[in-house]
Amino acid sequence: MLDKKKIISCDWGTSSFRLRLVDVDTRTVLVEFKDSEGISVINKNWLSAQRPSTERKAFFLNILKEKIGALNAPDLAQVPVFISGMASSSIGIEALEYTQTPLFTNELNLVHVCFQDERDIYMFSGLRSETDVMRGEETMILGCDFEEEELMILPGTHSKHVEVKNGVIIDFKTFMTGEFFNILSKHSILADTIAKPESINLDNEFYQRGLKEGYHGNLLNLAFNTRTYGVLNNTSKENCYHYLSGLLIGTELKSVSPDVKCVHLISEGSLLEIYTEALKVLGISAEAKFTDANVAFVNGHVRLFKNLYKREIA
Amino acid sequence: MLDKKKIISCDWGTSSFRLRLVDVDTRTVLVEFKDSEGISVINKNWLSAQRPSTERKAFFLNILKEKIGALNAPDLAQVPVFISGMASSSIGIEALEYTQTPLFTNELNLVHVCFQDERDIYMFSGLRSETDVMRGEETMILGCDFEEEELMILPGTHSKHVEVKNGVIIDFKTFMTGEFFNILSKHSILADTIAKPESINLDNEFYQRGLKEGYHGNLLNLAFNTRTYGVLNNTSKENCYHYLSGLLIGTELKSVSPDVKCVHLISEGSLLEIYTEALKVLGISAEAKFTDANVAFVNGHVRLFKNLYKREIA
Repeated sequence: MLDKKKIISCDWGTSSFRLRLVDVDTRTVLVEFKDSEGISVINKNWLSAQRPSTERKAFFLNILKEKIGALNAPDLAQVPVFISGMASSSIGIEALEYTQTPLFTNELNLVHVCFQDERDIYMFSGLRSETDVMRGEETMILGCDFEEEELMILPGTHSKHVEVKNGVIIDFKTFMTGEFFNILSKHSILADTIAKPESINLDNEFYQRGLKEGYHGNLLNLAFNTRTYGVLNNTSKENCYHYLSGLLIGTELKSVSPDVKCVHLISEGSLLEIYTEALKVLGISAEAKFTDANVAFVNGHVRLFKNLYKREIA
Repeated sequence: MLDKKKIISCDWGTSSFRLRLVDVDTRTVLVEFKDSEGISVINKNWLSAQRPSTERKAFFLNILKEKIGALNAPDLAQVPVFISGMASSSIGIEALEYTQTPLFTNELNLVHVCFQDERDIYMFSGLRSETDVMRGEETMILGCDFEEEELMILPGTHSKHVEVKNGVIIDFKTFMTGEFFNILSKHSILADTIAKPESINLDNEFYQRGLKEGYHGNLLNLAFNTRTYGVLNNTSKENCYHYLSGLLIGTELKSVSPDVKCVHLISEGSLLEIYTEALKVLGISAEAKFTDANVAFVNGHVRLFKNLYKREIA
């Protein structure tokens, strides 16, 4: 008999894997397991195993089953599993079409499949707009309480700016902020002038300068300042790191409309602080709201559970 | 006796080396030698030789001498050598301070040294502004005929925008356009959706779209379109290459002031065509002028020769 009190929430991304056993009434995480076996690694293992493509799904689901075992919790046999992230991409368990915007929170309009194993395993698609795609963040969005009108910002390697109008997710845009930072600091001429500081100092003048210059200027030109600061002024490599970081976030936030009423950050830890400071420094005077990204993800699966099983959650 | 009819012009960059024997009266290149032994490679060889630092200059000059031998031309013993580029940097023959803007064309205000070998070997510094640096391009600038007021654009890995006011080089800015393209197409998530086309088609609709979107939009967001075009619309990898190329050039040219009277491109081959088309597509209606980058470089050394030896050139 199906256990309708718990779900196993799975976040299977490109480079990380995470399982949580969740009590749906209290939304409490009872036990958690995570490792770095993202879809990318598993897909490589699958390819090197050279098995017939008909066995692909079983290969991935078998790994999932092992990891559920690693949760080491009793009575999991009937608990349904909810999977979001790159698991539904072409390098994952099975490719699902993206759900097309708008995204509704109280209908089940995320494309999904159910694998009938010894338990129900649901996998949910990503979201697409006319010009953009996401896989994973849509689950966090579903887990947020949002206003009639707001801009959600989910910072990261590929930051998402999600537009809510009349209480509906109508559009979103991806910003390659984190990825630009990574490749510039590793693979460009700037690599030699940058070093990660031991801790992030939000009052750092170079971070704040980077924010303001990025917000008003041209990234292709300003990025080179990171080098000239080092060459001309003996600026420390840690300050150059702060400057480039500010520059990229300032460039991203240039796209926040001055008319936006509420900015809703969905993030965690230092990234949440970094973006909060950025909004303040740049004088983006919209109302600011925050949701912890992990809470949002779990709540997203709880909401999907509710939509699927038509059950009211406390 | 010093030969005052010829110079050996040396362009010693980070990743390339080039020598030209030049007739100063006609500015004709009589013979040329080039290879890929840029300063970076020679510096690595020097470091692995583990010799005392007092021998550094001799090590580099000895390589220069061998390459002059490779020119295989008669009567070179008294011909002076003019060196520009990264040879004057900290990884080169000897680090010279950057010359501070403004740069004057008819005075010898580029910092330089003369090594007395069996011949005169002159090495010239780069140029710096308050916030930016160049090494090598300043020689091309000196080799151009420019207006009282114009914007010089030297496209490349690190494009330079050089501002001429009242006939004087007063300021410049570096844009990491070519380097962004290289690292995005090699090291980012876009790598899988990009392939270099066999030939550049300037009428390509994706190139033109990239130009316009880059000129008006936010690079951190638009770059991700390169991926979604492939994922959502099956756009060919060659068209994605064109789009990203347009996007970066459009972003760079956003910094061209609408008030500029004359845009002067100093470039060669396909890059010259690509930027000429970009100015047209973006409706930058300034007068357009062109100088071949190789001609500019040689003429720059001829001008420095004239300034040094106070000789009028025909």
